[in-house]
Amino acid sequence: MMSRRGFVSSAAVLTGAAVVSGRIQAAGIPEAPTTRTTAMQPPVVPSSGPDYQPVATLNGWTLPWRMNGDVKEFHLVAEPVVREFAPGMKANLWGYNGQAPGPTIEAVEGDKVRIFVTNKLPEHTTVHWHGLILPNGMDGVGGLTQPHIKPGKTFVYEFELKKSGSFMYHPHSDEMVQMAMGMMGMFVVHPRDPKFRRVDRDFVVIMSAYAIDPGTYLPKVSEMTDFNMWTWNSRVFPGIDPMPVRLGDRVRIRIGNLTMTNHPIHIHGHTFAVSCTDGGWVPESAQWPEATVDVPVGSIRAVDFLADNPGDWALHCHKTHHAMNAMGHNVRNMIGVNQRPLAGDVRRLVPDYMPMGSEGTAPMAQMQMPLPDNTLPMMTGFGPFGPLEMGGMFTVIKIREGLAANDYKDPGPYKHPSGTVAYEVEGPTPAPAKQSPKSKS
Amino acid sequence: MMSRRGFVSSAAVLTGAAVVSGRIQAAGIPEAPTTRTTAMQPPVVPSSGPDYQPVATLNGWTLPWRMNGDVKEFHLVAEPVVREFAPGMKANLWGYNGQAPGPTIEAVEGDKVRIFVTNKLPEHTTVHWHGLILPNGMDGVGGLTQPHIKPGKTFVYEFELKKSGSFMYHPHSDEMVQMAMGMMGMFVVHPRDPKFRRVDRDFVVIMSAYAIDPGTYLPKVSEMTDFNMWTWNSRVFPGIDPMPVRLGDRVRIRIGNLTMTNHPIHIHGHTFAVSCTDGGWVPESAQWPEATVDVPVGSIRAVDFLADNPGDWALHCHKTHHAMNAMGHNVRNMIGVNQRPLAGDVRRLVPDYMPMGSEGTAPMAQMQMPLPDNTLPMMTGFGPFGPLEMGGMFTVIKIREGLAANDYKDPGPYKHPSGTVAYEVEGPTPAPAKQSPKSKS
Amino acid sequence: MMSRRGFVSSAAVLTGAAVVSGRIQAAGIPEAPTTRTTAMQPPVVPSSGPDYQPVATLNGWTLPWRMNGDVKEFHLVAEPVVREFAPGMKANLWGYNGQAPGPTIEAVEGDKVRIFVTNKLPEHTTVHWHGLILPNGMDGVGGLTQPHIKPGKTFVYEFELKKSGSFMYHPHSDEMVQMAMGMMGMFVVHPRDPKFRRVDRDFVVIMSAYAIDPGTYLPKVSEMTDFNMWTWNSRVFPGIDPMPVRLGDRVRIRIGNLTMTNHPIHIHGHTFAVSCTDGGWVPESAQWPEATVDVPVGSIRAVDFLADNPGDWALHCHKTHHAMNAMGHNVRNMIGVNQRPLAGDVRRLVPDYMPMGSEGTAPMAQMQMPLPDNTLPMMTGFGPFGPLEMGGMFTVIKIREGLAANDYKDPGPYKHPSGTVAYEVEGPTPAPAKQSPKSKS
Repeated sequence: MMSRRGFVSSAAVLTGAAVVSGRIQAAGIPEAPTTRTTAMQPPVVPSSGPDYQPVATLNGWTLPWRMNGDVKEFHLVAEPVVREFAPGMKANLWGYNGQAPGPTIEAVEGDKVRIFVTNKLPEHTTVHWHGLILPNGMDGVGGLTQPHIKPGKTFVYEFELKKSGSFMYHPHSDEMVQMAMGMMGMFVVHPRDPKFRRVDRDFVVIMSAYAIDPGTYLPKVSEMTDFNMWTWNSRVFPGIDPMPVRLGDRVRIRIGNLTMTNHPIHIHGHTFAVSCTDGGWVPESAQWPEATVDVPVGSIRAVDFLADNPGDWALHCHKTHHAMNAMGHNVRNMIGVNQRPLAGDVRRLVPDYMPMGSEGTAPMAQMQMPLPDNTLPMMTGFGPFGPLEMGGMFTVIKIREGLAANDYKDPGPYKHPSGTVAYEVEGPTPAPAKQSPKSKS
Repeated sequence: MMSRRGFVSSAAVLTGAAVVSGRIQAAGIPEAPTTRTTAMQPPVVPSSGPDYQPVATLNGWTLPWRMNGDVKEFHLVAEPVVREFAPGMKANLWGYNGQAPGPTIEAVEGDKVRIFVTNKLPEHTTVHWHGLILPNGMDGVGGLTQPHIKPGKTFVYEFELKKSGSFMYHPHSDEMVQMAMGMMGMFVVHPRDPKFRRVDRDFVVIMSAYAIDPGTYLPKVSEMTDFNMWTWNSRVFPGIDPMPVRLGDRVRIRIGNLTMTNHPIHIHGHTFAVSCTDGGWVPESAQWPEATVDVPVGSIRAVDFLADNPGDWALHCHKTHHAMNAMGHNVRNMIGVNQRPLAGDVRRLVPDYMPMGSEGTAPMAQMQMPLPDNTLPMMTGFGPFGPLEMGGMFTVIKIREGLAANDYKDPGPYKHPSGTVAYEVEGPTPAPAKQSPKSKS
Repeated sequence: MMSRRGFVSSAAVLTGAAVVSGRIQAAGIPEAPTTRTTAMQPPVVPSSGPDYQPVATLNGWTLPWRMNGDVKEFHLVAEPVVREFAPGMKANLWGYNGQAPGPTIEAVEGDKVRIFVTNKLPEHTTVHWHGLILPNGMDGVGGLTQPHIKPGKTFVYEFELKKSGSFMYHPHSDEMVQMAMGMMGMFVVHPRDPKFRRVDRDFVVIMSAYAIDPGTYLPKVSEMTDFNMWTWNSRVFPGIDPMPVRLGDRVRIRIGNLTMTNHPIHIHGHTFAVSCTDGGWVPESAQWPEATVDVPVGSIRAVDFLADNPGDWALHCHKTHHAMNAMGHNVRNMIGVNQRPLAGDVRRLVPDYMPMGSEGTAPMAQMQMPLPDNTLPMMTGFGPFGPLEMGGMFTVIKIREGLAANDYKDPGPYKHPSGTVAYEVEGPTPAPAKQSPKSKS
């Protein structure tokens, strides 16, 4: 786990370091914190400057910074990383500061920021600050607004944060490949007025998709549609953190999408509205009540809701394939065919063969089928009542009484009040339903 | 045709039946009406309780209920069904109460409902009540909020309808497979105030997509993108009911989407606005004027418009492939190549071969090409002026003067007033258009 | 280049030509202007009638008309065309009046229009006026509202423009094939009140997608998802016109989508709002601030923004594959594998083989790889700082001080004020970032 406190205090020594306006010596570059963990790091509560509710990045962290005069300095390092999607599967990606996606950048409306970007990739890169209003030369479009950053080099971006909201950063240099390899992160600018659209819990998710053949580690970067790893913060269920929430909290979930298709994110048990896009805050007069928010590619939707309904509430992409893990997408339906005795034989010939069930696929979630190396079962995760039969873009909002502010530990399974769970009728099921004759009127 | 009247009166005998709070004997389960017809059943006008405008489910029906004390009791039976997509093609699906999709559930804001779900599938299932606000244990997420319902068992869901609007029901158990097999239905909660957002005609459509190889009957349940049956209420044009509407009616069409992609539904001749999502009613200040509404996956868009323009108005998905029936999607373009003499030879080798036309494909709609068994022509349906050359997600809104309220019989072709139809110029077409020279300024 | 001035004056002679109400002789058909250029034609500033800001169609033009009494007469000719997508690649398409897409039709709210449509295709066609409110018989749905227009015939459409806004025209006859071949155009109706939602620059883009195998010329018209030419006005970057804009201008970009998927259009450096759909003007109370607008299929989004940030701002589809030119989509990732020596050998066997780079694909943009005939490099276009590594749906908004009104000439590269471009740190890059130990708290 990395420590912001340690970083800030050691960084404080550098506060007065010489900065040549417009030209900085390598010695003046701030430290680049990095992490190897995929566990969500505690939100970084501001200890000075304007107050704000810090965000919690699922399976991720916030990038520490140092003050240099009145400028917040950050350091991103673009580099190859190994990312665990869920226990049992890792991928060779490109990311920032040890992980993919990169750390969330948090700052405050009106801040001046200086962001150092070091390129440790085998090819050139840049960083585009998606949605931010800045001078043209800081926009990060390689070839158009700046030279590409060559391997081994460090570039400096400097701008003022003109408005609060939810933004992203990602390369604008060999863009298709670099995003398909996982390079992206969120950039949250908090309002200078701490009361503006304030919430109690503020979660961050960025969506990416990968095409990784079973048993392999490297995404196929030219794939356009047939992805098999649909991820939140480059994690898949059951590897995605739950969202612990205190009953009565105002909750925000900021969801960015850098895949190749829309993701309709469905929240159970609550009605919500989009409060913010990557373009800014949506006026109340323009908000729609929603049960599912369709997040377009290259966009962010921050949704706000009141957590007034206690329990374990599913939150997932409603494209059913996106709430599953790796599988073939052009498989014959074997409903009605008993094929289990054949599976071993076939797999000797076709190592990534995964049979579909003859009574549906639910029984497969409970079998212990041998899988290719580095491959997750397509439906996994267990809840208090049995297998969840979901994977991919799925997690659970856990709304409980009495959680402490900024406590994001998993509170365990929900205890339902008596008589509030769907229940089985006693005794044998009655005879087949009466067939109403067509002629009967 | 099934009869609500008969059902309600026989059910009335059971009104006082013993119900063990939280535990019900099998003998107390209400009858499960079922139907074999794909014809739209007349809307169920309320005979008691609050007044409301009942919905008309295209090619479908509303599930009858019985009162048990102050509770409305419904009974859904999950089971294998045979669904006719259009005359000439049937599919082996999974559905509810004899059809797929299941019957529409209609009730009123504030109602207490008790819904029995009997599982006659070969694998376990659950029912999730999409968009409804209810206790966590009634949310229907197998493994998370309840045990899965095993084959042969019946479960009970009980909750109060907290708000009016347009909702859905579908499994949350082996979800990808069970929805790919057709399991879904709409759940309409009418406002307690009969005047709130009242309309004169209220249609219900739920969209699903299937991958069924030509000549076969079973959907490929692991298909992610390459579907060939794009359906409304598991029907394709010309098998989809028209929408008869009286000139001057306020019309609502509630469209749910449980496919794997957005469907942009285009309505000809009228401007409309989204009045309701699966999250609730959209305030007027937030409504957009639209000619096409993009319905995201896992979402509902109810659109309202004034039927002030008489005639036959097309209503269809604007993704052109979705307004077609089965065809291959990676076929070489034969425009300019005469291949008709070869089609028979090729089909002896490749039974599902369908050639593309050498002058476009319109001439094919008029040929009588032999097709594989259980396969529809890709472009079908005839109108008063010839072949429509559409299939899939397409139907016609028929706006006429003088229809009776709640009369949904097809009024036949529109009689255009004189001089209001596009017409052919008399005489030979003039010489080729003059080519404006590039140099001319 | 075609001349509106010349057309109008020669057409004036015909103003009194005999028009049989409801039946027109071939001799009365107006001239059909045509063009062979793909360069953007200057906007047609109105010289009589209500004032309005004319639109600029990227790589396109506005269809001239003649007055006949109080009716504006236009003539569209549906015909095979050759369209250059960018220098180095041409396609055999179907279009209107010499190009695909067809010319933009511009008129004014309240105008009476008469549009002649001559069919020079090998199969029948019709024209549907998407979003316009008109009599049912003028709606252009072949078979439903009119007979199809046979090859060699000319049909007449007549209607009044009931409302202002952004609309489209396209066939409703063998619709999938004819749109896949490029048949479409925009139809802009200006408000009668010249001050209503007035802007200073008004650009028109219609999006279409094609599946054209490398080395071939004809789109595969039955393709549903795997397109490789994602175009604006049937052009791809670097063949797409830039958008010159004067600093301080109010800018509108009207974007129509007739592909098979949503396109999220991202504008750099500015926040915008949707002001108009194909259904009409969006009230201010309902507008959202956006950095990316997701344009659904069969829809138009007109976005308005204030050009208050000078520079070269990228405008592109944020689906990364759509900002690339032709490539295979199921290619193995070769990052880490040196394959360049093999490329020639493989291409002798597989003529359209394009290897992916072993250090990413950016180095490929700078190599001069031999390509199949009539095929564009997948990443092309050069800016002031080097290769842009983009293709497809990409162009640049060039915001400059001091441009003249209605001057759309490319103003050349932006001159950045001193100290406003991201810059390289001097000296060697420091040692690898310190790895924060997991145990450190």
